[in-house]
Amino acid sequence: MTDMALRISVPDDSWVDTLSDLSDRVEVVVWDTETAQPDGHLDLVLRPYALSNDVLAGFDTSRIGLVQSQALGFDGVAETLPTGGVYANAVGVHEASTAELAVTLVLASLRHVDDFARAMPAGTWEQPWTSSLIDRRVMLLGVGGIGGELAKRLAGFDADMVRVGSVARDDESGRVHGTVELPDLLPAVDVVIVAVPLTEQTTGLVDDKFLAALPDGALVVNVARGKVVDTAAVVRAAGRIRFAADVLDPEPLPSDHPLWHTPGVLISPHVGGKSSAMRPRVERVVRGQIARLLAGEEPDAVVVRT
Amino acid sequence: MTDMALRISVPDDSWVDTLSDLSDRVEVVVWDTETAQPDGHLDLVLRPYALSNDVLAGFDTSRIGLVQSQALGFDGVAETLPTGGVYANAVGVHEASTAELAVTLVLASLRHVDDFARAMPAGTWEQPWTSSLIDRRVMLLGVGGIGGELAKRLAGFDADMVRVGSVARDDESGRVHGTVELPDLLPAVDVVIVAVPLTEQTTGLVDDKFLAALPDGALVVNVARGKVVDTAAVVRAAGRIRFAADVLDPEPLPSDHPLWHTPGVLISPHVGGKSSAMRPRVERVVRGQIARLLAGEEPDAVVVRT
Repeated sequence: MTDMALRISVPDDSWVDTLSDLSDRVEVVVWDTETAQPDGHLDLVLRPYALSNDVLAGFDTSRIGLVQSQALGFDGVAETLPTGGVYANAVGVHEASTAELAVTLVLASLRHVDDFARAMPAGTWEQPWTSSLIDRRVMLLGVGGIGGELAKRLAGFDADMVRVGSVARDDESGRVHGTVELPDLLPAVDVVIVAVPLTEQTTGLVDDKFLAALPDGALVVNVARGKVVDTAAVVRAAGRIRFAADVLDPEPLPSDHPLWHTPGVLISPHVGGKSSAMRPRVERVVRGQIARLLAGEEPDAVVVRT
Repeated sequence: MTDMALRISVPDDSWVDTLSDLSDRVEVVVWDTETAQPDGHLDLVLRPYALSNDVLAGFDTSRIGLVQSQALGFDGVAETLPTGGVYANAVGVHEASTAELAVTLVLASLRHVDDFARAMPAGTWEQPWTSSLIDRRVMLLGVGGIGGELAKRLAGFDADMVRVGSVARDDESGRVHGTVELPDLLPAVDVVIVAVPLTEQTTGLVDDKFLAALPDGALVVNVARGKVVDTAAVVRAAGRIRFAADVLDPEPLPSDHPLWHTPGVLISPHVGGKSSAMRPRVERVVRGQIARLLAGEEPDAVVVRT
């Protein structure tokens, strides 16, 4: 095995099988990152999905070329990974799946499919009038990877779309409004889909004032990060504003949290990226990085260097 | 009121308000069609939405120019409306809203949002792996108005689409397979959305054999008519096949029906067209018919003459 061009670690045996076609050039060892780091140098460490950042603190970065995450978000990594670490996030893996879940939450909430699901055990046949996405004005708050996948999916639904980014600009799809325009835009919006990165500026962006600016019956859907929305403000706005979220603050949402029982609220347990779409796309990312490293090139999507 | 060019009936006062701008040429009377027919001739009778066809039997068609339905389906009308009746269905009113609900059911079932909704009262935070629509092969069974609106909505979801109509042909969007090809197509399909009209040929189309041809875990969604699917066959296929439906056989589904408790089943209570999209589109249909009648033209969308 000493003639191998590359030595990488993967979180479980399934990845050894997945990458077996590369076995003549790439040595693949299994490391779940919770046990002791394997001896010797690893050109690439593929992190397990959805594991706490705490484990990063124990990494011997002097023996790791690249830490490859399976997640898009990397908050906390810079603070935890020891000096000398190089960390790449998973671009192109979760955006579409997360946008799909956002559309699912929008539609399920508007058309009351959550109520229908809850009424099934009792065999209740009641036919409410519901709001269709047709003719609605939808704000996409965030024009990054998820925002683009959202716009693509929502294009066929006969809704008006209003896009908002950090700063006003025009792009190939038209106007992007800036967040400073929110007070003017929110009163005319029926649905807001929040898909911004978590930054100092976006923390608590959806607060009492934001919600108060929305018309009665508006729906807010959060697939960004939990802390972008002030959960207590949502509970206070209950009855007037509908809310659906895949990300919460705190997370996991404790079983006794009032949001579980707030009328007009639909919660999914942070599964935006956790779908059948993920594995083939992580594989694509890993193969891309391996190809770059084999070619002596720099890895792609490096978001943290410590 | 004798100089009016047209005299029509509407199901309730809200419609009198809606059409008040026409009051110089159109006399609008309120008739819910369950009480005695108003004296005199009615050029157009706008039926209430979702009322049984039974009331049609009492219509004095010799004093009615056109019966305008707010629904798309018209099964049973030809058998009930007395001789001399002219009956128009509501084209362009429900197709988009129904297609939207079909997409909602597809996504909610695939991403387990029904399970999440049911888990909310207990505050349960469990993160299953689910199937994304991304990379899936979706069969649109039916290429009429709903089928077209479905294709438009699904276009952005990174799924493959296979369209099936009664007979094989090509149209501006590509290949339409014929129903005779179903046995060859079904084994490679992940999701089937049923949106065919109810005819002798489509009654019971989704039966034991149809379901047996689908791969394990496939999802069937029915927004056509309940009788297109053999409900008992769905119950028998439970566990292997997922099912979601807005239309059932029988309907309303009795509260003690086993389908309510069949694993992997999601039911909405026939609300595909019952949304905020309906009223403005019915208004458009009614205004179109009034304009045609005022111009001395034939009404549009006449589907039954008795």
